[in-house]
Parts: sequence; C-alpha cells; structure tokens
Amino acid sequence: KVMVSNEVKPHGAGDSKATHLWELLHSLILSFHEVSPAAERLRYILSEEDDMPTPTLFTEMDTLQREGDELEWKESARWVKFEEKVEEGGERWSKPHVSTLSLHSLFELRTCLQTGTVLLDLEGYSLPQIVDDIIERQIEEGMISPDLREKISFVLLRKHRHQTKKPIHRSLADIGKSSSSTSHAQSRSMNDIADTPSTDQLKNKFMKKIPRDAEASNVLVGEVDFLNKPFVAFVRLAQATTLGGLTEVPVPTRFLFILLGPQGKAKSYNEIGRAIATLMVDDLFSDVAYKARDREDLIAGIDEFLDEVIVLPPGEWDPKIRIEPPKKVPSADKRKSVFSLNELGQMNGTAGGGGGLAEDEEIFCGGLYLDIKRKLPWLPSDFYEGFHIQSISAVLFIYLGCITNAITFGGLLGDATDNYQGVMESFLGTALAGSVFCLFSGQPLIILSSTGPILIFEKLLFEFSKNNAIDYMELRLWIGIHSCLQCFVLVATDASYIIKYMTRFTEEGFSSLISFIFISDAIKKMVGAFKYYPINTDFKPDYVTTYKCECLAPDPMAAMIFNGLVPMPDNSSSVSGVSACFHSLNVTALDWSQLSKKECLKYGGSLVGKSCKYVPDLALMSFILFFGTYSMTVSLKKFKFSRYFPTKLRKLISDFSIFMSIMTFVGLDMLMGLKTPKLIVPTEFKPTRPDRGWLVMPFGKNPWWMYLASFVPALLVTILIFMDQQISAVIVNRKENKLKKGCGYHLDLFWVGVLMATCSFMGLPWYVAATVISIAHIDSLKMESESSAPGEQPQFLGVREQRVTGILVFVLTGVSIFLAPVLKFIPMPVLYGVFLYMGVASLSGIQFWDRIKLYMMPSKHQPDFSYLRHVPLRRVHLFTLIQITCLAVLWILKSTFLAIIFPVMILGLMVVRKMLDMVFSQHDLAWLDDLLPEKEKKKKDDAKKKGKEKEKKKAKPDDSEEEVRNSGFCCPL
Amino acid sequence: KVMVSNEVKPHGAGDSKATHLWELLHSLILSFHEVSPAAERLRYILSEEDDMPTPTLFTEMDTLQREGDELEWKESARWVKFEEKVEEGGERWSKPHVSTLSLHSLFELRTCLQTGTVLLDLEGYSLPQIVDDIIERQIEEGMISPDLREKISFVLLRKHRHQTKKPIHRSLADIGKSSSSTSHAQSRSMNDIADTPSTDQLKNKFMKKIPRDAEASNVLVGEVDFLNKPFVAFVRLAQATTLGGLTEVPVPTRFLFILLGPQGKAKSYNEIGRAIATLMVDDLFSDVAYKARDREDLIAGIDEFLDEVIVLPPGEWDPKIRIEPPKKVPSADKRKSVFSLNELGQMNGTAGGGGGLAEDEEIFCGGLYLDIKRKLPWLPSDFYEGFHIQSISAVLFIYLGCITNAITFGGLLGDATDNYQGVMESFLGTALAGSVFCLFSGQPLIILSSTGPILIFEKLLFEFSKNNAIDYMELRLWIGIHSCLQCFVLVATDASYIIKYMTRFTEEGFSSLISFIFISDAIKKMVGAFKYYPINTDFKPDYVTTYKCECLAPDPMAAMIFNGLVPMPDNSSSVSGVSACFHSLNVTALDWSQLSKKECLKYGGSLVGKSCKYVPDLALMSFILFFGTYSMTVSLKKFKFSRYFPTKLRKLISDFSIFMSIMTFVGLDMLMGLKTPKLIVPTEFKPTRPDRGWLVMPFGKNPWWMYLASFVPALLVTILIFMDQQISAVIVNRKENKLKKGCGYHLDLFWVGVLMATCSFMGLPWYVAATVISIAHIDSLKMESESSAPGEQPQFLGVREQRVTGILVFVLTGVSIFLAPVLKFIPMPVLYGVFLYMGVASLSGIQFWDRIKLYMMPSKHQPDFSYLRHVPLRRVHLFTLIQITCLAVLWILKSTFLAIIFPVMILGLMVVRKMLDMVFSQHDLAWLDDLLPEKEKKKKDDAKKKGKEKEKKKAKPDDSEEEVRNSGFCCPL
Repeated sequence: KVMVSNEVKPHGAGDSKATHLWELLHSLILSFHEVSPAAERLRYILSEEDDMPTPTLFTEMDTLQREGDELEWKESARWVKFEEKVEEGGERWSKPHVSTLSLHSLFELRTCLQTGTVLLDLEGYSLPQIVDDIIERQIEEGMISPDLREKISFVLLRKHRHQTKKPIHRSLADIGKSSSSTSHAQSRSMNDIADTPSTDQLKNKFMKKIPRDAEASNVLVGEVDFLNKPFVAFVRLAQATTLGGLTEVPVPTRFLFILLGPQGKAKSYNEIGRAIATLMVDDLFSDVAYKARDREDLIAGIDEFLDEVIVLPPGEWDPKIRIEPPKKVPSADKRKSVFSLNELGQMNGTAGGGGGLAEDEEIFCGGLYLDIKRKLPWLPSDFYEGFHIQSISAVLFIYLGCITNAITFGGLLGDATDNYQGVMESFLGTALAGSVFCLFSGQPLIILSSTGPILIFEKLLFEFSKNNAIDYMELRLWIGIHSCLQCFVLVATDASYIIKYMTRFTEEGFSSLISFIFISDAIKKMVGAFKYYPINTDFKPDYVTTYKCECLAPDPMAAMIFNGLVPMPDNSSSVSGVSACFHSLNVTALDWSQLSKKECLKYGGSLVGKSCKYVPDLALMSFILFFGTYSMTVSLKKFKFSRYFPTKLRKLISDFSIFMSIMTFVGLDMLMGLKTPKLIVPTEFKPTRPDRGWLVMPFGKNPWWMYLASFVPALLVTILIFMDQQISAVIVNRKENKLKKGCGYHLDLFWVGVLMATCSFMGLPWYVAATVISIAHIDSLKMESESSAPGEQPQFLGVREQRVTGILVFVLTGVSIFLAPVLKFIPMPVLYGVFLYMGVASLSGIQFWDRIKLYMMPSKHQPDFSYLRHVPLRRVHLFTLIQITCLAVLWILKSTFLAIIFPVMILGLMVVRKMLDMVFSQHDLAWLDDLLPEKEKKKKDDAKKKGKEKEKKKAKPDDSEEEVRNSGFCCPL
Repeated sequence: KVMVSNEVKPHGAGDSKATHLWELLHSLILSFHEVSPAAERLRYILSEEDDMPTPTLFTEMDTLQREGDELEWKESARWVKFEEKVEEGGERWSKPHVSTLSLHSLFELRTCLQTGTVLLDLEGYSLPQIVDDIIERQIEEGMISPDLREKISFVLLRKHRHQTKKPIHRSLADIGKSSSSTSHAQSRSMNDIADTPSTDQLKNKFMKKIPRDAEASNVLVGEVDFLNKPFVAFVRLAQATTLGGLTEVPVPTRFLFILLGPQGKAKSYNEIGRAIATLMVDDLFSDVAYKARDREDLIAGIDEFLDEVIVLPPGEWDPKIRIEPPKKVPSADKRKSVFSLNELGQMNGTAGGGGGLAEDEEIFCGGLYLDIKRKLPWLPSDFYEGFHIQSISAVLFIYLGCITNAITFGGLLGDATDNYQGVMESFLGTALAGSVFCLFSGQPLIILSSTGPILIFEKLLFEFSKNNAIDYMELRLWIGIHSCLQCFVLVATDASYIIKYMTRFTEEGFSSLISFIFISDAIKKMVGAFKYYPINTDFKPDYVTTYKCECLAPDPMAAMIFNGLVPMPDNSSSVSGVSACFHSLNVTALDWSQLSKKECLKYGGSLVGKSCKYVPDLALMSFILFFGTYSMTVSLKKFKFSRYFPTKLRKLISDFSIFMSIMTFVGLDMLMGLKTPKLIVPTEFKPTRPDRGWLVMPFGKNPWWMYLASFVPALLVTILIFMDQQISAVIVNRKENKLKKGCGYHLDLFWVGVLMATCSFMGLPWYVAATVISIAHIDSLKMESESSAPGEQPQFLGVREQRVTGILVFVLTGVSIFLAPVLKFIPMPVLYGVFLYMGVASLSGIQFWDRIKLYMMPSKHQPDFSYLRHVPLRRVHLFTLIQITCLAVLWILKSTFLAIIFPVMILGLMVVRKMLDMVFSQHDLAWLDDLLPEKEKKKKDDAKKKGKEKEKKKAKPDDSEEEVRNSGFCCPL
C-alpha cells in the first residue's frame, strides 16, 4: 500500500452482486499497486478527526431454542476479545479460544449484509420499538409480507436465557435429579422489556472482565417455520441503550444483528452469527461499524477483514481443535495506521529521541545532577508503591539471603582478620549500608552485600599489616577515605559512561559467572557437611556393642606439657571457662569418663573407640534439608503454570514458594529433632573483638606517610568497587526488566563512596552491589497484568520499583540480633538450598544460558528464538563457545591469587567483545549481542547515506521482539 | 451436501473472470441446498474408477536469487505434509509447521491459473525441453513476445541450490570465517541438465522421510527485470521424470509450477508459491491435480479447497506465529468421500459387525474353542515379535517387580504358614506358573503373581488346620483340585461372559484401588525402615563419649532360667549355631564385652547404654534411595518430551528409565557402603521347611470326608481367583491398549485352573493375574509410529504383543537362585521406590483419576475432555464422588477380616453401577462410562424405531475420541 489512487468508486446499493464481489477480489489482487476501493472507503471514514476512541464491544450471541412448547433465546457464545462458547451438554463456558471461522460463513455474512436491512443510528429506547422499526422497514422495502409482522415480532421478543456461573456447592445438592432438568444452571431474564438491569445481570461476576466503557452488540440467530427466506437486520443505535434482559451483563446495547431463516439450516446460521460476532470484536471492524455511513462501508469493512485473514489448509488442521489465545497479538493501532492520513509522518517520527548522551558530558557532576533530577520526583511513589502483599514475600526471601550472606562473610572475615571484623560487624554493616543505600540511591532495587573480591583484599591487607607491624584498622580507614574520594572523582567526571561498552556479551558473562560461583558455593557447603559429620559406613547394626568412644586420661607425666599444645577446636561458648580451668588443673581429680569430647581434648585426654570420628545422621539429614528446600522451591515456583486452584492462589503460592519451602523444612527439622547446624546470629551488641571499639581513630598509630601511601591500594579497591557496582547495576537496569523510574549510576556510586568512608570509620566491612541477590530481589517483585479479556495472556508489566522492601530487609537484618531465639530454628542446609535456588534462578532468562542449551538440542527441536531465524547455527555456537571459553578462563583466574582483581577482568571481557567485531558480521552481532556505540553510530550513518530502509532493517532488526533486547542502557545518562 | 443436482454447468476457458468468481462465491453460499458447480466437477473426476491411488507429493519451492552477478534458484521451503522453511539468516530448516496462508495469495493463485499456461500430461524428458514447450505455448497464445524466449529460458535453466543438512562438526571449524561465506552450508547441483540423480541428492538423509512411491512437484518463483507482466505455467508431466538437480531428493518430478514476474513483488510471488505448494500437498487437491482434465478442474479444486479452509481473524492471531502440527488431522478419506458416488452405502456400512456374541453361547466349551482358534495363528509371531530392544527394558523392569513381589509374599506366606510355603516356594512357584501361563495363555501380557486375598486365605486355612489338627498341605491340595475343577466348569459354561457387565466404572474403580494399595504398601515399607532403624534424635556430637552399648552378663543365678525365654529376634544365618551353643553353655566363660547384640541377648545378657536402641544413618539413607529412585524414574520418563538430544536417544532413556534409576541408586548405595537392607534370595534349592518334600501326597493324613468337604472352601477360592483374574484381564484388554491379537478369557481361566492344581500338588503358592504389574508390563511394551512426514505426531500404535518378555521374566525369576551374588547389591528401598512408581504410573491415564483432579481445578482451567463438553460438570463431579465413596468403602472393608472376599466385592461395584442407571441419564453415562449391554441394545432399538440419526448420535457419541473409550471388551467372546 504505497500509492494512493485518486479515483474513489462510489458504490450504490443497487449495483449487481456479481460486480461487487468481483470488485472485492479484484481489489485484493491489485492492492499491491494501488489502494483497493474497500481500503479507500475505510481510509475515508477512519481518518475523520477522532473525537474519541470507540468503546470496546462485548458481543453476545443468542440462538433460538424450543423448550417444550416454548420458544426462547439461549445464550450460546460470547466474545470480549476471544470466543467463549456455551458447551451444549456441559452447561458451562468453554475456555476462551481464537474464533476459527469458515470462509463460507464470512461470504454468507457478506451477502446477508448486502441483502438485509441495515439501520444505522436508529433511535431506539426499547426492544419492542426497535423490533417494530426493523420489521416496518422490511415491509416497506417489500422484503417480507406484512402478515409476518406479528410472527416475527413474537419470536424476537421471546425471553432470553443466559449462561451464568453457578456456585459449585449447589451442584452437589442435585443428587438424584435427572440431567434433563438443567434450568437451574441458567438465569432466565423475565423482564426482557424492562429498562433497568435485572439482579441476575448485576450480580454477574463476569462484569469485571469487561472494560468500564464497553457497549454491547447482540447477535440473535435462529430458524423458524414460517419464513421461506432469511430475515436479516443489522442495527446501530444512535445511543447505547440497556434493552432489558437482552444481554447477560448490564452493558448497554449499541449493535443488534438479527438473522432468522427457514428451518433446516441452524448450523449455517450459527456460523454466520459467529462470523459477525467475531467481526464486531475485531478492533478495525468495530471502528468501521461505529463510523459507517452506509451499508457499503460495512461491506468494505468485511472486505478489509477478509484481506487480513489468516487461512489454514483443511488437510493440515482439524477445525475441531480450539486454538488457545496467543501470547501476543499484533496491535490494532498498527493495522489502523494504514488508514490514517498522517501515515508518513508517524513513520519518520521514531527516528529521534534517545540522543541525550553527548549534551551532558561536558558539565561537571552533570551525571549526578541529572540522576537526582530524575529520581527525586519518584520519591513519594517509591514509598507508597511498596505496600503490596508481594513485598512481604520479597522481604522474607531477600532477608534470608542477606543474613545468610552476612553470617557466611562475617565468619570468613573473622577468620581472615583475626576477628577485627566478625559476624557482629557484618550484621551491623549490612544493615547500615543497605538501608542507607536503599533510602538514597539511584537504583534502590540493588542489594548491597559483601563480595568475594573485597574479602580477599581484606585478607591480604590484614596479613600485610601484621607482617609489617602496621595498625590494620587505621590503614584500612585511610584506604576507605581515599577510595571514597576517588569514587567522588569518578562521579564528578561521569566515568560511569564506560558501561556503554558493556553489551549483553559482557553483562551476561559476568552474571553467569557469579551465578555459577553461587551454585558451586552452595554445593561446596553441602559437601562440607559430609566432612564435618562423617558417616561411619562400616557400622553393622548387630555389632552396636563394639562402637564406643571413651575419653582416656593422659599419661600423668605428659599431661602438663601436652595441655598447652592441644588446639582449641573452635570458639563456641563452651570454651568460656578456659582460663578458670587452667588455674586449678588437677588431672587426676577429673572423672574422665564424664567429659565431653571437647573437654576431653582440652584437658589432654585422648579419645579411643570406633565411634569417635563419626557423627550419625546429621550429614544425610542436612542433604535432605538442602535438596528438599531447593526442589520444593522449584516445584512451587512452577506451580503457577499448573491447572490446579484459582489463578490468584497459585500466584500467591508461587510468590511465597521460598518462604513456604523454608517453613516446611524448618518444620521437618524440628520434627526430627536432630542437631543439624543451625543459623546462629550474635545476640549481644558489641564488637566481636573485645579490644576494639565502634569507632576507628584516623591518626596516631601509623607513620604519617602511610596516610598518603594508602592512595595506591585504595585505587585497586576503587576499581574493584566501581566495576562490581556498575555491572550489577547494568544487570538490574536491563531493558527486559522494564524499569520505569530510570537508573542512577552516578548517584549509586556516590553513595557507595560515602558508605565506604562511613564503614571504614566504624570498622565495618565494605559493601558493594551483589549481583545474584539483586536479581533475586527484582525477580520477586515482578508484576504481571491481570488479564482483562478472558483468554488474554497476562503481560509482564515491570517491577515494583520502590524503596520499602530494601529498607525493610536491612532494618530486619539489623533487628536480627534480637530475633536470635526465632532464627536459631533455621538449619543452615535449608539456607544453602535457598542459595542454590538463587543461583539457578538467576541463570534462567539469560540468553547465554539458552544458547548453551542449544548445544544439546538437535536443530529441529530447538526453540524458535529470533536470532536462530537470522544467524546461522554454527555462528551462534561459535559465539557461545567464545563466551564459554572466556568464562572458563575467568573461573580459573578466580581460583588463583588473581581473584582480587576479578571485577577488573571484566574489562578483559569487554576487550574480547571488541575483538569479536573482527570475527562476526555486524548483522550477526546485532542479533546475538548489541552493537557497540561507535559501530551503531556508523551503521546509522551508513543507513542515512544509502537512504534505504531495507538496509537499516538488516543492520538493526526492528522486530517487535527487539524491544525486549537489552542495550545495556536503561536511560540516557 | 445431501441432494445431487443434475445440472452440470460446463465451464469454457473463455468465460469472463467476473462470472467465474461470482459462481465460486455463489456456489459456496448455495452449497447447503445443492452441490456447487465446483463440487460437481470434482465429483465427476474423482469418482472415476480408481485404478490406483495417487502417489504422495513432495513439494519443493525454489526462489530466484542473485548471488553477485549470477542468478540461481535457491530452495526456500519444502512440504511433505507440513511446511518447512529455510530460515534466511539461520541457513537451516525451520520446524515443520502448518502453512498459514493469506486469502490474498490464494485468490492471486487462482487468477494465475486462470490466466497462465496450463499444460496437462506434457511429454517431458528433460528440463530444457519442458521449458521450451512452455515458452512455445505462451508465444503461440500471444502472451509473451517471441524475443523473450531466450531470456526466460536462460533464467529457468539456472542452477538449483538446495538446503542440505551439514554435519555439526564442520561448524566449529568455521571459526574466523565471516558470516557472508555461507556457500558451504548448501549443496549446489551442478548437473541440472543431467538425468541421473547427483550424489548430493542420493546422500540426502531427508529421503527416508518421503514415502517410497512419492513424486515431486516443483514450484519456481522469482522476479526478473525483463518482464512487465507475470509469466505463469502449471505443468503436469505424462510420466514422472527425474529432471537433474531440480529437486533436493532423487524423487521424479510430476508437477511444475513456474511464476516469473516483474520486479518489486517478490514477497507476493513468494506467497503465491507457498499457496500452490500447500495446495499440492493437500490430499484432495493433489488428487484433483492428478486427474484434472483441464484448467477448470484445477480451479474447481482451488474453490473446493477454499470452501474447506479455516479462517483465523487477524485481531486474534499473529500470522508470525508458526503453528505446530496438530496431534491429529481429519482423515483425507472423509473429505474425499463427499465426492465418491457410493456415499450412502458407506455410511450405513459401519452399523454391522461385533455381533458374534449370542451365537456361541450355546456351545459347550465354545468360548475356549474360539479362544484357541483365535490365538493359535498368532503363535509364531508371538515369538519373533518379541525380539526388540524395548523387550530388554520391559524384561528387566518386570523381572525386578516380580522378584520383589516374590520375596515380599514369600516372607509373608512363610510367617503365615509356619514356613510350609516360604521364599523358596514363592520363587519356584512364580517361575513355574508365570512361564507356563505366558507360554499357553490367551493373554500372555498378563503377569501372574501372589495376591493379597490369597495370602489371607492361606493364613486362615493354616490356622484352622492347626487348631483342628488337620494336615494343612493335604487339605490345601484338595482345595486346589476342587478349585481347578470348578474353574474348568466355569470355562466350559463360558461364565466369563459376566465381564460384559464390567464397565469403565467397575474396572477403573478396581484398578485404582489396587494402585492405591501398591502406593500405600510402598510408603508403609519405607516408614517401616524408620522403625527398624530408629534414629537417635537426642544425639549431641560433642557428647559422643557418653554413647555406648554394653553387653552385661546376667545375674548368674537367673541365667539358666532366663535363657529359654529370650525370643530369637529373627532367623538370620548367625543363629545357626544355636543348638550347639545350648549344650555347652557356660555363662561365666564368655567374654561378654565381645558379644554382638544378638549373641548377647541369646545368652541372656542385657544391653545397657544410650546407643543400644538406635541405628545411625540407615533410615535416612533408605529414604534417599527410595525417594531418589522414584523421582529419578519419573524425571527420566518425562525426558522423552524434552528438547534435548535426538528423539531416538530420548526414547531409549525413557524406555530404560527404571533400569537406569535402579543402577544409579544401587551405585550410590555401593559408594556409600552403608549396610542398608539388601535383596536376599534363597541360594539353595530345597523346601524352606526341612520336613516337607517337593510333592504333596493326596491321601493318608486326613479323614476321607475332608476330600469332599474341601469343595466348600474351594468355592470361595474359585470366586476369588475368577474375579481377580478376569478384572485384570479386562484392564489389560482395554480398548486404549489397541491390542490386535485378541483376548482369551476362557483360555486364561483354563490355565489358571491347571496351575492351581499343579501348584497344590507341589505345595507351591497359588497364582493369579496381578493388575499393577500387568499394567506396567503393557506400559513398557507400548509402540509408537516413527513419524513419517516431518511434523507429524507419532501415533500410539499398540503394544508389542508377544510371549517372549513374559517367559524371559519368569525364567529369570527361576534362575535368580543362582543370581544371588549379583542381586544382593540391590537395596530394598530402591525396589520399594520402583513399587511406588508402578503404583503411581498405573493411575495415570485412568479417566477416574482425571476426574478426581477436576475437583481441584477451576472450571476455566480444566482440560478439554470430551465428556466435559457434553455432560454438566456437577454430574461429572457427582459420578466421581460416587466412585470415590465406593472405593472408600472397599478400602475400609479391605482392612477388616472381609479382605478375603475382596475380589467378590467387585460384584458390589457392578451392582452400584447398575443403580447408577436410575441417577444418571443414558446420555451422561454414555460419555462417562459405557452403557450396560441391555441398555445399549435397547437404545439401538429405539434409534432404529425412530429412524433418526440425531437421536443415535446423542445416545452414543460417535466422536473420533470415542474410538479410544473403553467398552471393557476387546473382542467378541
């Protein structure tokens, strides 16, 4: 449809049918050259100034049925968008499905509209009056004889019986009744002539599925014995009017289609009725119906509909199959736009926008200023939008992730720094840094946490300080201060622009790697349980008498010497009496057989016996808890897609799946009563190491040059933090997540810097965005549309962007010190199961992961990914292979001392991506990855030069799926 | 299409287009009254005496492409039944999908055929000659100017490049090559003018997807710069001829469609090409194309195709979505039958058949005779059909089920009969009875096993004998003899006819109950492990020193008295030294601390200590093995439907899922090395009880009247065996299983009777058909069609009916005595997991179970079961509720002493079913259950009387799904 022909052929009502139909087909055939007459007509009526959009139409089809001696209209199908049929025997609504029509019925409908009565903008206030008007017109035009007036009117004013939902509890009371008494299942409108809606209509719950502004179109078809040719009428009322009990729901009627005909063709009439009903809910045809000036406009509407129709060959499809509504249908606006006059203007309009990058680069702190300007207006909504049931599950999920992380890293930090930073500091720091960040940052969906590289840095720093007799805490404070200042410099110079070069390749590589680390850590911890609690595999139940573990007193001579050498197995509370004991040690006075394992070793006793090394049951129980929690969570998450229970309940179960799994396995653990390792949080608010306070003094312990020299290690920390923070932010700000409130890379970095300094002053660990937990946070806050029309698939709308869940998580983390009595029931294996789930879940939805899976699928079974349609499979595999190789190299590096510069290695990934430009064509990269900025720009220039739309399409596919693809940038920086 | 109009309008080629098209539409509209002209034409050509069916058509579409300066034809799509498209960028075949066409392209194609050259039965031997002929004709008709001859001929004789599959290993070698060098992925036919197929063609693996007799139709579309109007030709060759490299596969070409047109409309030409290609593979149109006499016949074919076409509204479907081929398409014969002349004769033909019931009832032993007559011809195939890889997995699966059952029941029988029948007898009996039955029975898919009711009977009989000082084995022998004779009477009188009254209601009720018993037994056994191996939940790892279990010597005075009272914990081999020890008992001489638990108790010692009661790890390990085996089997079974790996490998994994799970968890168990309970089979071939031999003598130990009186208990056994055997047989012979070799209820019962007597003489347990294992046997032998056309769903073909698997299972069972060293590695919990799987699997596919699940589904999410379309949901629920109630009552009765008459209670189920006739209408019952014989007969009579087809349809729905529904009868008895 490129050229607009100027000749508009006017169509009179008197033209011969043959000519009309030929014109229809001719127009279809010729529409490549010129606009068909039908399209021309539609263009004329649809392009009138849109005073207002046309209302949505609800269509109900009633068929005439004989119940004993009585005639009545029985609802047989309805349409909001898709068709719902009344199952004849089943007395219930079918699932919403795509209306499959026969070409036949559409042609017959076309003939009906050509030969029948068409009344447009009829002034109608009641059904009897409207029926009278129709019959009068038909008599006037000589289509029916006047003596049929009474009979037709009688039939058309029969009662309407609607299919309404019946509460299920009544069904069980029906025992013993024969199935023929089906009248209870339906409501009968007794007040068909009344103007007010009946109670049945008002009570109908289906109303909530119909948009507020909707109007109804009623289709009435039936066979009668007194007609010998069809009686057809299409009526549009001047005003939408409630016509008594005509419609199932209290929606005013605007359109009325009536088809009465001779007997014996009920099936054909039914199909014609379905055809007009389907047309009425078609976005384009309903516009035409509202705006049609005459019969010919309606027929042009049908012709246009036929032109767009999709045809399935009879030998390849069974018409009995009800087609499920598709996930997505082409938007009606696209179809309509063909007919609007300012077509060209719209097409060119999309080229602009998104060009705000270069302008701000020059301004000092410009990025930060823009971030604040962008985020500030959202601040109130950041709070009130947080109050939703979904937030509760998100808070519980992320909270458990956070405290597990805090305990794990706290323990590791305690080991690494000789308890200068322990579990207590970890809790306090997490709570402080997290809540401040969530309150003020640019992207409050990011969750701060300790990360591996920081841990390694602290470890090296502590060893360095110890070996060189430098005060660790003071040195650390200065590094923090320097790093904070360096962050400010990065913010002020808008250095975050570097992330433009972080394409899907880099980003997915990084997040996959982090996920793999999560998964491997969870499994490692689990395997650890088998080492902590060794199983005695040689145990023979019958020889239980031979298993024991006795504490034998040491050789009295050696006892005193030996005592000092025995290492303390761990720092649990039972050791608190150590110093007291050492004073009054009297080995011989002890009853050795009464000592516990630890005491025995402490006092120099030796453990003798077959069972000393082993711990029964705990390892296997831990495994059951770990694997059970993981698999139950996975199953419950999937439960959303099952058929059982109402959608809302399923969604609730899915949202709370992690919480429910944890509760279940905590319950199981309590029931079994085994001494599995539990979550232990510190209960007293004091630094882990007694010789440090809550504040670190900046001066006095180290030489002055140290204060300056710490600039160098601070640089490493800054790069580390910058990369870790910004990559996680890029992942969170992915286009797929459909975030609406924009991002704030500069603001984020600013607060991370501030928190660096704060934590250093208080001697708390440093915090940075945690990829996997942040993804889990996003995932638990995803919103889906409540499907409006029956059968329409719920659409992913975006994420509940707010600050409440994050703040609550970290406040709860802080309060956890007081929650110890409750938390102590949670076994650690359960939490490792949650970790495993987090890692696995964050892999799903990553294109890289999808591509890895392609290796194992024969090509004919591969899913219909859009890039597979456009890029040869071997190129896809090659791309994936390069990515896998990169990750393998990173994984190996991570296991060496290079782990400390791990985030910096991401720069390496970006270099690899740059080199890929030499291996892959820009076309392939556009599909598999995003183009790098300069390439994209170049391509655009090329496209402009050539002026060919075709070329542009190839370089950057403008498929609708394309919208979802990630450019790595959520907003102009 | 009821009446045949006599006026056949002849259509000349010179008629105006407008008239033609109007006639098309007119015919569509009027076809309810009379046969349209198009249909009339087709009826004429299709009803000619079918000398032979037309070959299947393979269609290939090639489009003209410019590669540099060179023009060539590139394959762009192909059809066997469904469309496979070459993904332009992806350079590979798309998944087979339903061709979605636009109405547009079909109309354009129609015009093309009306205006272009149609050459039917052209004598063609090479492509250049055919092309010359076409061009010559066009010049003759003045459609093109002669100076275009060279150009068109040049274009049409360009080389053809086909999309052929490339081995994947080459793709990885392509590293570094730019994506533009794609020529390697395709084969270029260099010998387009040669007559012999090229090696590329011959090597093409796709050939195996094309039927042997297939012929090709080639569609060539393209745009050229020298034409200003389309050049169209449709050619049918007189003989199918291989035209060099025209076709991807070495299939001779019969049809050729050429469309060359002016530039700028490639997309439109493409769509027209797809339209003709889709038509060519349509069963009906291809017939028309083969038999068409002229152009008009072809156009009539298109019109008829259009008439049957299914239309999707543009607003409800996205044309980009590729529709997966449906599970089933309407058969082409049905569509064709409309055009065959002997239409009415065919319709009435289906009423006969299946009436062989009444005739045979009078003949003595008639049923047995017929059974033998029916089964005998299949005997050779019963053996050679057993040799298939699937049989191996079936044998392993069923074998493990059988020996587990043999051990379980053997143990229980041993307890119940004081070892008169123990595990050894159980093994021997299973092997003997099973192999004889599989060798000679009417239904060799049935697996014989001990069942619960028989066990209870034996228990009661043994107690009665013991209390009344009667010889148990002799009494049992006589009961067996009587029972055998009674079975013969039942066989001779054809009593098996009673199962006619066993409808789906009864049959599914029974098999569900048996499945529930299986499941509950498996779980009970698992829970039992937690009792046998109690877990010490108070165990504190640190206080391991306080746990021990010591054997203390008894008070020397009390020792001698006490000894006799200590019960022996079990009869394991370690007790064999008992009698020896009792002689020389010297309490004080024993080293008590060295004694095992059993020995300690035996010698009257007492066990003291915290750990005596407990067994570590074994319970939890058992649980892991049990649950792991079950869930791994379920996952592997489902793996068949995953996308990974080639179909054949997936099928193999699915077939061997049970074996692989067992191996995995046996391996895990060996790896852990824990003393989990293992499968122990007897190793010595001798009766369990030393005081009995392998033969029971019929006389001498009991009074003579006993021999007669045993008739009464035998009657109970006979009823028990009859019901158990025949219900299982009905379940195995279900229509769903599509058995082809017929059943043999009488023959089955005969052999069960013979085996009763034989086992009684040998003192072995009695055997009868085991429902769950038999279902598992059937399930493991199911066959599916290798999908022929790409995209066609594999169809369930039936079951590998043979005697080999059954015989092998029982021979293996017999040999198991020598397999003990291997079998002893299999832990019992693994086998319980297999039992659980068997129980759960036999529930699936049962309509009753589907209906139970409906309770938990909101009606809008319920699957589209055919009965839900015809029976109100509350009636369905009521029916299910009655069934559940019946089963609950049976379950309760089963738990009481009434368990012995359990199979007889099935008679109660049949009575309940009879009463349902009063609650439900015959229409509802026809959908939910089957009609009882007399009702069905009556309905048929009614239908005959009324003569209305409509009525008949309601009483017994003739839906295609109906074929699958189970009438409880697989063959005329």
